[in-house]
Amino acid sequence: MTSGEVVVALDVGGTGMKCALVRPDGAVVHAERHATRAEHGPDAVVDTILNIAEALAGKARADGLTPVAGGIAVPGVVDEARGVAVWSANLGFRDVPLRDLAAARLGLPTALGHDVRVGGLAEARLGAGRGTGHVLFVAIGTGIAAAHVVDGAAAVGAHGAAGEIGHILVRPDATASRQPVAELAGAPASAADVADRAAAGAPLAVRVWREAVEALADGLATGQALFDVATIVIGGGLAQAGPRLLDPLRAALHERMTFHREPRLVTAALGDEAGCRGAALLALDARP
Amino acid sequence: MTSGEVVVALDVGGTGMKCALVRPDGAVVHAERHATRAEHGPDAVVDTILNIAEALAGKARADGLTPVAGGIAVPGVVDEARGVAVWSANLGFRDVPLRDLAAARLGLPTALGHDVRVGGLAEARLGAGRGTGHVLFVAIGTGIAAAHVVDGAAAVGAHGAAGEIGHILVRPDATASRQPVAELAGAPASAADVADRAAAGAPLAVRVWREAVEALADGLATGQALFDVATIVIGGGLAQAGPRLLDPLRAALHERMTFHREPRLVTAALGDEAGCRGAALLALDARP
Repeated sequence: MTSGEVVVALDVGGTGMKCALVRPDGAVVHAERHATRAEHGPDAVVDTILNIAEALAGKARADGLTPVAGGIAVPGVVDEARGVAVWSANLGFRDVPLRDLAAARLGLPTALGHDVRVGGLAEARLGAGRGTGHVLFVAIGTGIAAAHVVDGAAAVGAHGAAGEIGHILVRPDATASRQPVAELAGAPASAADVADRAAAGAPLAVRVWREAVEALADGLATGQALFDVATIVIGGGLAQAGPRLLDPLRAALHERMTFHREPRLVTAALGDEAGCRGAALLALDARP
Repeated sequence: MTSGEVVVALDVGGTGMKCALVRPDGAVVHAERHATRAEHGPDAVVDTILNIAEALAGKARADGLTPVAGGIAVPGVVDEARGVAVWSANLGFRDVPLRDLAAARLGLPTALGHDVRVGGLAEARLGAGRGTGHVLFVAIGTGIAAAHVVDGAAAVGAHGAAGEIGHILVRPDATASRQPVAELAGAPASAADVADRAAAGAPLAVRVWREAVEALADGLATGQALFDVATIVIGGGLAQAGPRLLDPLRAALHERMTFHREPRLVTAALGDEAGCRGAALLALDARP
């Protein structure tokens, strides 16, 4: 692969799309953001994706670069083997053959991936999990999802739905705390704000923060029991709380380890570029 | 591989060892059972394993067969890559390099595996999961452990401790039910007995059985959220309850599925030969 080669990479979210030209070594040489406008319906979203991808490929060529592949990440249930966006609440997708649509439009081999799984791929290979063979990436934003990455490949599952750690049963007795926890998890600014107020000793903030940490530690302990990873990487908005999250979370996880080896617990290193960079990795991995 | 080739396979449990000569196609051509006598200490257990393995290889040769590999399965934490039995409460093992000890004694390439993971390997490739790429094998005996098998390989984890589904947090509010559940899970005869009594409508048996089923369904729903398998195979003593377990368990699991595809739920097909047959598969996979 020559140095002028790039992958056209899109990370499609419910409100915005992160788009980039990514070099084979994972470096981003150009980045753009666009609105998803999911309210216009799934067909319009697909059109927008294809138009942006095509324009990015054109931009690459205009800059003297050679687009060699396309990589697209979407949320929901994604069948990577068939290249189909099976289901997405945010985007209204139902069985959209997005890989083949984009490959036809771009005239390039294209891969379709799940946003959190490709984010985990990027963190495991280029970011905070680099150098460890077994990584669990946990993205905590408006929801919580995970990617289990072993030797540089993310587990997809039988139906493209692996890693739904947000759907596991943690603390069925803690229903009363769900709402504030959800608010914390959903709003990065609020999470940092609650963390600040908890650090300052405000009683409600202390309680809410502690309950969020305990619930998260339950989920991570479950993940560790089943996956036995070397490193857990925390990403998404809540990770911005940094040591105010990681320090108590590490202590709570430690309490829950019995005979298991305790994983290294770190925050994500790639920020919100992880999705694009992972989509590019997936595309490069899939090239014939 | 010629038709006379066999693997010397041992499945070492806390009380007994199942030992076999297994053909490359998975068929058992000879089986023996021996006492583990773990009370004599780990060194004595290792001696017993090596003596039995050597005798089995001799028996194969006497019968005109050709032993080509050794496969040993043990409980606990097993580092398959290094061939080390890291930890076993039942056998008293701490960092026993059992693979190399057995390879030296047998003069044959030998693989060391985890009892439940190789059992899952056998069920996925030769038994109840055959034909499906993503299988979760859950063995319910004196404890509960699982093996996640994708495309014929069982996930080992970073430290040889993957699949500890018995250690995940299910129903923290249900402490009162833990003891009878444990008794159920621990004693196959009792489990069948409780199932019978529950089927006959005995109130305590009905309650205990229902709680066992609900707790197990919680654990399986967690596993399905994280792994997204096509088939869940229930093995171990509790599986002997058959439809009295599977029918209510399938209903309880169905209630817990949201957007996930529901896995096929079946009982194990290979009985207590799964460990030996899986140890043999592991040995054959590892052959240079």
